[in-house]
Amino acid sequence: MKTKLVKNALGRIVPSVINGIPQIPFMGIGKYKPDGLKSILSINSCSDYPMDGNKVSHSLKHALLKSGIRDGMTISSHHHFRNGDLIMNQVFDELSLLGIKGLRWFPSATFPCHDPIIDHIKNGTIDLVEGSLNGDIGRFVSLGKMQKTGVLRSHGGRWQAVQDGEVHIDIAIIAAPTADTFGNATGDRGPSACGSLGFALVDSIYADKVIVVTDNLIPFPCIPWQIQGQNVDHVVLIDKIGEPEKIVSGTTAKILSKQRLKIAEMTAKFVQVAGIIKEGFSFQAGAGGISLAFAIYVKKMMKETAVKARFIRGGSTKHLVEMLEEGMTDYILDGQTFDLEGVRSIRENPGHVSTSPFTSYNWHGKGNFSSLVDTVVLGATEIDVDFNANVVTHSDGLLLHGIGGWQSCLFSKCTILAIPSIRKNIPIIVDKVTTLVGPGELIDVVVTDRGIAINPKRKDLISLTKNCDLPIRDITEIKAEIDNVIEFPALQTNRSNNIISVVKWVDGTVIDSIYKVNE
Amino acid sequence: MKTKLVKNALGRIVPSVINGIPQIPFMGIGKYKPDGLKSILSINSCSDYPMDGNKVSHSLKHALLKSGIRDGMTISSHHHFRNGDLIMNQVFDELSLLGIKGLRWFPSATFPCHDPIIDHIKNGTIDLVEGSLNGDIGRFVSLGKMQKTGVLRSHGGRWQAVQDGEVHIDIAIIAAPTADTFGNATGDRGPSACGSLGFALVDSIYADKVIVVTDNLIPFPCIPWQIQGQNVDHVVLIDKIGEPEKIVSGTTAKILSKQRLKIAEMTAKFVQVAGIIKEGFSFQAGAGGISLAFAIYVKKMMKETAVKARFIRGGSTKHLVEMLEEGMTDYILDGQTFDLEGVRSIRENPGHVSTSPFTSYNWHGKGNFSSLVDTVVLGATEIDVDFNANVVTHSDGLLLHGIGGWQSCLFSKCTILAIPSIRKNIPIIVDKVTTLVGPGELIDVVVTDRGIAINPKRKDLISLTKNCDLPIRDITEIKAEIDNVIEFPALQTNRSNNIISVVKWVDGTVIDSIYKVNE
Repeated sequence: MKTKLVKNALGRIVPSVINGIPQIPFMGIGKYKPDGLKSILSINSCSDYPMDGNKVSHSLKHALLKSGIRDGMTISSHHHFRNGDLIMNQVFDELSLLGIKGLRWFPSATFPCHDPIIDHIKNGTIDLVEGSLNGDIGRFVSLGKMQKTGVLRSHGGRWQAVQDGEVHIDIAIIAAPTADTFGNATGDRGPSACGSLGFALVDSIYADKVIVVTDNLIPFPCIPWQIQGQNVDHVVLIDKIGEPEKIVSGTTAKILSKQRLKIAEMTAKFVQVAGIIKEGFSFQAGAGGISLAFAIYVKKMMKETAVKARFIRGGSTKHLVEMLEEGMTDYILDGQTFDLEGVRSIRENPGHVSTSPFTSYNWHGKGNFSSLVDTVVLGATEIDVDFNANVVTHSDGLLLHGIGGWQSCLFSKCTILAIPSIRKNIPIIVDKVTTLVGPGELIDVVVTDRGIAINPKRKDLISLTKNCDLPIRDITEIKAEIDNVIEFPALQTNRSNNIISVVKWVDGTVIDSIYKVNE
Repeated sequence: MKTKLVKNALGRIVPSVINGIPQIPFMGIGKYKPDGLKSILSINSCSDYPMDGNKVSHSLKHALLKSGIRDGMTISSHHHFRNGDLIMNQVFDELSLLGIKGLRWFPSATFPCHDPIIDHIKNGTIDLVEGSLNGDIGRFVSLGKMQKTGVLRSHGGRWQAVQDGEVHIDIAIIAAPTADTFGNATGDRGPSACGSLGFALVDSIYADKVIVVTDNLIPFPCIPWQIQGQNVDHVVLIDKIGEPEKIVSGTTAKILSKQRLKIAEMTAKFVQVAGIIKEGFSFQAGAGGISLAFAIYVKKMMKETAVKARFIRGGSTKHLVEMLEEGMTDYILDGQTFDLEGVRSIRENPGHVSTSPFTSYNWHGKGNFSSLVDTVVLGATEIDVDFNANVVTHSDGLLLHGIGGWQSCLFSKCTILAIPSIRKNIPIIVDKVTTLVGPGELIDVVVTDRGIAINPKRKDLISLTKNCDLPIRDITEIKAEIDNVIEFPALQTNRSNNIISVVKWVDGTVIDSIYKVNE
């Protein structure tokens, strides 16, 4: 099928066909109404499964072979171990040794621990990583070195794509800190406990074959069954599936500069002044350092005013756990666990509830939780004067970050991007974002060290905060001040017109393209 | 499509077409391999649902109208309130007033409280009740008074039929003891708490429109979410949804005769002698009085020998709850809650786990729990000398009982039918069962007041129990003794050759027909 380049509703140029599959350009928020049918699945039969429930396979290789592994298949995995995953490199090493070619890896995210996968892209075992492209894998893809075109999705978009049959998973690999021989599995206990397994739920429901890999096999039943054995084909016992201490990798472990702490504090004050911190409210803070610090400031304010939240959306951290255990919130609704206190809490506290992208983010459900959250604080790599934002590429065009749940979170009642005005000598507020990942229509407030800008659409927020002593300014004014201080470096000269990846919106339409960066 | 009568693998005559839908005759246990696809579902979009998550509709009628109710639709409901349901009569009264005709009611079971539905079958609002046909509704259908042909399924078969697209549910009505405005719902709390809502899970996933009806609306989120709001269209608040004290209705509340207690005790002794009661074992006891008494005897034996079970399958009762709370089992895996102590326990005990027919019974999954249970004790209305059994009709041909989870339970490692040899002057062991619901191949032991018969196929059980002092006898010998005591009454003379219902096997094939009884 021939690819045309078309302009979508945001004026971004996107391909009409990606990897041979026709695409729908972004049409506007809530504008695309799917008229198709969900993924069509074969009917299984208990006749094909052992009556004693024992699905244990003696090795990962054996389970892959029994699952019918062959060239061109799609292999999925989850990222609950974040930078501590010990399975997927093994899987692709095995498949490479078996001479399998042209696989699509469909992870919910990649981390630096997956850098060895680059060798398997080079040797042809993998021709497409469809999922977050962080760090070195992102850089590699940015340089045009992956055979096929990347497709970036937010966590909710990943559920949507699988549910709607856009992505058919042949074999799902589920790293499970505890499992029984029938395939019931949980992430909340065992020597490698990592918390929730919510990202793997869609894989378990829709994949043709599901392999649970564990280092802690217990007698049936494994309770809770975050993953249900009725969806599982094979169970593999190995020595060690992951390093849970590394779930605090990346953005969640950083010590913040004074500047960033100031941004976090201003954000918390803004939320307070806007009247959002009140009895029964809710908030979500992303995995970035400022977002996490925001949560700590909010906690302090809640204590001072004796306000209790109804729920907090995690990524859970020890700060959220303290709030739950001190009775400052009824619930943590947790999508992934960001530290070991979160892991302990999800195991011990009935009010610490494991969620999945279905509950939280899937746009093609009968509603989801993201629009019920009173405020969310997120990061971004760039934002433009129309409040459109970028979270995947840097201003030099390099694709270095995953979307995470970012796009879906924008539906919160008050979406705040809290970012330094200048990062590594690059202004963050730009005329036009390098990659448009989040439409400005959904971004309500930008908090920087040089002031707070409220989206003009949010007259209610402007009115609520007009008499406060926070530095609320027009976004163009903040931009002008930044531009006075620092000149925008000539970064994008190396960018070509070859599309190496696209970014999907939560409804499966294509919101923007990402271009090759010449070496 | 013309209906032919065909003989299935058990020699039973079944129709080739039911209500216009072609059928597959029973082919033998595990023989039918489905090659089709699961139910095909439309893709939803959050665009069509309120962003604030509030799906509350001001009345049941309003929610039905917004769900597009029209003639010929399929309306489903669950039976977790057993004889205490207060909703479904209201629903059909409303629909009758609206002049809707030709509905299929697809309940997971009916109870005497639903007898008023007979009027709606008479007035044409309903032309088919597809589900358990107990008591007066069963008698009414037996007399040939329902327009279409009934289809009886075990709980697992109901999940299978919906999952596989055999039954498409247009509107599901879910009575929910607690719910939030988004549609998250649970049965374990609230003034009308009834325990698990597991039977409604398949309805919530596969129905076009889902209406949650509650008398306890709480702020989002309703935790636990046995039913997820992402599957729900409308929420309706009414004064009272059910009478939970009536969940102990029917078979679960009876005081047993000495004869039945003796059968229960013999059954427990048999299980002990056969070596089944050992550390880490599991059992399930049905809703019948003997089964429930069996659980009490087993509990006593476990105490005497200091044996702990790994799990017990419920229908939960206070006896099972005591075992859990006394540390005699790690888990209760509960499909429905049979008394108020069960309700309290499923709310309070993390080891009391709500299950659904998907986890427990669905034959068209990648395995299910029923074949992992060490022993199950069930009732029956008739059993023949080849161990084939009947659980739906009496020997006079009248259809008076639902199948419940009975068929799926037969896959247990040791399936025991514990029944009086004579009931209301009718011998229970017969030459040929009136309706064949369970193939003898799966029935291992029959315990009666006149002795215990072991299926000759189970040489292991015969060997394990050969030196015990239990009255283990050949089934034909027990039958001969009964026939000596009592003559089989001339009951079936009124039975016609008109098929008024069929019985499906767990794989969706037709195992037997039920015939009209002339008045």
